[in-house]
Parts: sequence; C-alpha cells; structure tokens
Amino acid sequence: MSANGEFGYIKSRLAPLAAGFKGALGLADDAALLSVRAGRELVITADTLVEGRHFPGGTDPALAARKALRVNLSDLAAMAARPVAYMTSIVWPANAGDALRNGFADGLARDQEEFGVTLIGGDTTSADGPWVIAVTAFGEVPAGQAVTRSGARPGDCLVVTGTIGDAALGLKVETGDYQPDATDRAYLLERFQLPVPRLALADALHAHAHAAIDISDGLVADCRHLATASGLSLDIHLDALPLSPAAGRWLDEQDDTQAARLALASFGDDYELACAIPEARVDTFLADIRKTGVDATVVGRFSAGSSFSVAMDGSIVEPGAGGFTHF
Amino acid sequence: MSANGEFGYIKSRLAPLAAGFKGALGLADDAALLSVRAGRELVITADTLVEGRHFPGGTDPALAARKALRVNLSDLAAMAARPVAYMTSIVWPANAGDALRNGFADGLARDQEEFGVTLIGGDTTSADGPWVIAVTAFGEVPAGQAVTRSGARPGDCLVVTGTIGDAALGLKVETGDYQPDATDRAYLLERFQLPVPRLALADALHAHAHAAIDISDGLVADCRHLATASGLSLDIHLDALPLSPAAGRWLDEQDDTQAARLALASFGDDYELACAIPEARVDTFLADIRKTGVDATVVGRFSAGSSFSVAMDGSIVEPGAGGFTHF
Repeated sequence: MSANGEFGYIKSRLAPLAAGFKGALGLADDAALLSVRAGRELVITADTLVEGRHFPGGTDPALAARKALRVNLSDLAAMAARPVAYMTSIVWPANAGDALRNGFADGLARDQEEFGVTLIGGDTTSADGPWVIAVTAFGEVPAGQAVTRSGARPGDCLVVTGTIGDAALGLKVETGDYQPDATDRAYLLERFQLPVPRLALADALHAHAHAAIDISDGLVADCRHLATASGLSLDIHLDALPLSPAAGRWLDEQDDTQAARLALASFGDDYELACAIPEARVDTFLADIRKTGVDATVVGRFSAGSSFSVAMDGSIVEPGAGGFTHF
Repeated sequence: MSANGEFGYIKSRLAPLAAGFKGALGLADDAALLSVRAGRELVITADTLVEGRHFPGGTDPALAARKALRVNLSDLAAMAARPVAYMTSIVWPANAGDALRNGFADGLARDQEEFGVTLIGGDTTSADGPWVIAVTAFGEVPAGQAVTRSGARPGDCLVVTGTIGDAALGLKVETGDYQPDATDRAYLLERFQLPVPRLALADALHAHAHAAIDISDGLVADCRHLATASGLSLDIHLDALPLSPAAGRWLDEQDDTQAARLALASFGDDYELACAIPEARVDTFLADIRKTGVDATVVGRFSAGSSFSVAMDGSIVEPGAGGFTHF
C-alpha cells in the first residue's frame, strides 16, 4: 500500500477511535500521553494474537479485533483494574484488503464502546506472513491494590467464575470436529470468538480476593500458576468443574467422561477468572458477583506446601504439565 | 517449542531483564504495575520491526533487538521524555533456535543498561512467518511539558541533529550496493543497525523547542509532518543538509548530486531529531546540545501558511510525497 494508504487508513479509520482522548494527540504524534490520577497506578499488559494460531484463518476481522482487545482486557480484569486505553501494533498480511482493514477498525470501535476504552496509539506495517495483532492495554487501580497471582493464603478457596471448556468446544465447532444443534453451536462459537473479560468483578476482587489469574492456558495450568506464585499447595476437584448446559450435552456424548472433563479444564481460552478467596468470604464474594450477572464455583483449596493435585471421582488424575502452550 | 520451553525462556532469559523493577512482578503475572510520580505524565509509544522489512533477514538478533528498542526510545526522545521501561511482544519465526532467542535477550540486556530502561512485560508466540518484534516503550515528562509535533510557530527555525543519510547508505553497504573502505563501511553499517536515540537532548528541548519529531520516514517527509501538525508553511534548504564525512565521500562519487542529496534526505531510519526552535534561541540550543556531544544544523524555516518547499542550489526540487513507507 502507498504512503497515502498507510497514513490515510490511520487518519480515516483509526484516528476516530482516539477521538476525545486528548493524550492520544489524534494518533498523529510520536507518542501518546497518559496521566494517572493521584493515588492510582497503571496496570499494563501486552498480548498478541496471530492468525492461524490464536484465531483461525478467515475469521471475520471484526471478531479477531474484538478478541485481541478482550484477551488484553481480561488480563486487566484479573488484576482488578479499571480499563482506560490501549494501543495496537498490527502486521497486515501481504494480501490484506479493505475488508480486513475496515473490519478490524469496526470491531475495535464496537468493543471500545462496550468496555469504555480508547485507542491511543500503535503502529501498522505489513509482511509476507500471517496477520499479527499485538495489543498493549492500560488500566488503573488504587495504588498498591492490584490483585496479583501471588497473594493466595493457606485455607483460601479456589473459585472459578462462569463456565469452563466452552471455548474448547467452540473451536471444535469452528473446525467442524463437533456439530451440535444450532443453539449450542452459536453459544459455543461465541464463547470461543468473543470471550467476556470479567471487568465487572473488580470491586468484588478488591474486597475479597487474595489472588487472581485469568484462564487463558487452561484451568489446570493457570491455577497451578496461582499456587506456584503464591508458594502454596493446591488441590483441584474437577467434579465441581462448572459447565454450561451446552458443554454438559457434549460431555454426555463422550465415552471417557473423565478424560473429557480434564480436556475441558486443560484447553484454555476461557478468559474466566480463577481467584483465591478466604473461606469465610466465599459466600459474600459469590453474592457480590452474582449482582453483576456472573456466577462462580469453588473448585479447590490452597494449603501450605508445594504439592499440586487434580482429583475427579475420588481419585487423582494426572494432568501432566497441563495447559495450552502457544509454541 | 514445548510449554517448558516458552516458560523456561521467559524465566531464564527475559525475567532477569525485569529484575529490580518491582512492578514487573518478575514477568510472572497477568500485567505489570507502573507508578507515575506526582506532577509527571506518561509518554507511551509502540513501534514494530519485522524481519525482511525493517531489518534484513539474517541480521544478528542482538542488533535487531537493540534497534527495535532504540527506535521506540527515539520516539520518546522526540517528545523530550525520560525513558523508564518497555514491553516486547515477539512473534518468533517457526525455525527460531536458541541463537535467535538468546541473541535477542542479550541485545536487550546490553541496551537496557545503556539507556536505563527495564523490561516490564510482554508476550512471546511463534508463527510461520517473519520474525516480528513489537515494542511498547514508556517514558515520563513533567505534566504538560511533552514536546509534540504541533507547536511550531511562524519564524521558528527547522533544526536537525546529527547527520542525515548515513542509515540509507548503511543499508546499501549491507545489501552490497555500496562498497566503501572499511572505516566508512563500519561507520555506515552501525548508523543503520544501531541508531542513537537522542535522549540526551531532553533538557535542551524542554528549554528551547516548540516542536520536534524523530526522523524515521525521511527528513523531508517527517519535517512535512511537523509543518502540517503545526498548521504552518515550511521551506527546507537541502544545501545545508548535514552529512557525515562518509556520506560526503559517497555524494562525491554520484553523477547527479542533487538527486543523491534528495535521496539521503528522503530515505529515513536516521533517528535524528528535527525541531522547531525560535530564531533567537538557536545559538543557545546549539550550545546546550553540543555539551552532550551532539551537533545540529539549521535546514529550514517555518512561516504562516500551508505551503511546503524543498530547495537546493537556488531552485525548488520536487520531493513528491517523500519518505519511506513501510507498506
């Protein structure tokens, strides 16, 4: 694309996404300016999606844009941060046309409004390779109040929001490996394509959580990260794994339901939160987050030590290393 | 690479780069925390380098890493910001081995020390495509004191730091299109591979500059951006184009020195700064920056209006759209 093409796209399609944010300088300067209010600190995360790896080739570009933004907002949600702004560094594939570029901008526009964030900068280039969407997202928390992975304490309950495994099945639907009825199909696909960052839980996390992580690599692997970061043992009970009705119907069709349940808990892309909540506060935490329309389930417990177990049907199942890795 | 490979690389090679920066959380959490001192604001920029486009395939990975960091620091320099930290989102090529990964980390380690910045987060993945290095860099300025592109005033002089065109010739050396003696070869290659972000000029910019930009797309194109952003006319005089002795020797060999000079002023990758300095302060500005070992040259003047001209040898040369575009 010509120089006018690059600058023209930024001016006509991306700069409007920065309107109203003074420090974005209209996406027309060398950098953006961001003020942080007194008593707050910035929470910053960077996650990249690559076509063919994190989303299938041929995905609606608006959906790809929204997922790229949402997985970053999910990291902010896991820290109990309020999202503020984001940047995108894009590598267009060599054959990128107007449909891809405009769809991308349309998707960002839609989710900006939904989540109250603004594009404040970034970069575009192109290359002979897959489409790369690198996002850096900015949120804020009261200084010293971010919820990290390392604060779990012995006796804390492991609480997981929403349902687990829907995204795994959504990918199976997308690739044709699973063909449920139309309702389940639409539900599972959306769960894979448009994860919902649990930003609405920030107040409840600040009030009750000792630690939190968002589930991107799989419930088993990510909860293990919580335990390791906190220097604790963790016992997970997969009998309690929260499943959607659609995932329940898939599970009913499987011969080895134990292996199938473990697979749902190991795939990732759920973008639910796993939190360490003191036992005495679990009921209050659940009541608080239900007010925001989100349910949660106790699926394990932290204790002193450094062991890790996943149990089901009264026996320990071996999760191996567990978790999806992007290598 | 296996899950252990990804996590192992981050833990063994990247996490040490985050040591000592508390908010980086050891690169082991969902996001990083960044405090901004009272009375300061954050300056944030994102620039991506792609192998085969922004640096030649087969480039020493340490040099690629350092250039990726430096071009971002150059954007901070153009805003007169003090650099603080950065994040990297990397897409490794499918065949990436230990030499690439370790060289990358080594390069970052070296330049972190040189420029006083710390890695605080990011993302790694891999794909069947070129190596992508996306950097987001964070600096700070006294609130309201960032030097932007839009502040030039009628009568301001256009002042350019250092010398222009060396990077263009460095690329010619790298591709074998220009074969000078060993001294010029080494000098020009380094100017292409390791641009020096003009961070040392921050105080002088704060004291004297109305506007600034770093020269990545070419002197002509980037200075035109300054004029456009400031709503002014600009006349550039390329007779005054500051050239290194090495570039001067190349120019002497060219048949059409006017076209050659214009080419040097249009290529980009110089990462020098172009600034709008009030005429009465130019001498003081030059004296101040010479104390930091950097020279600068007046190459044009802003005036009221919206015209743009590039003159050489007493006549207007047509620069066209000008500037390197990464599309």
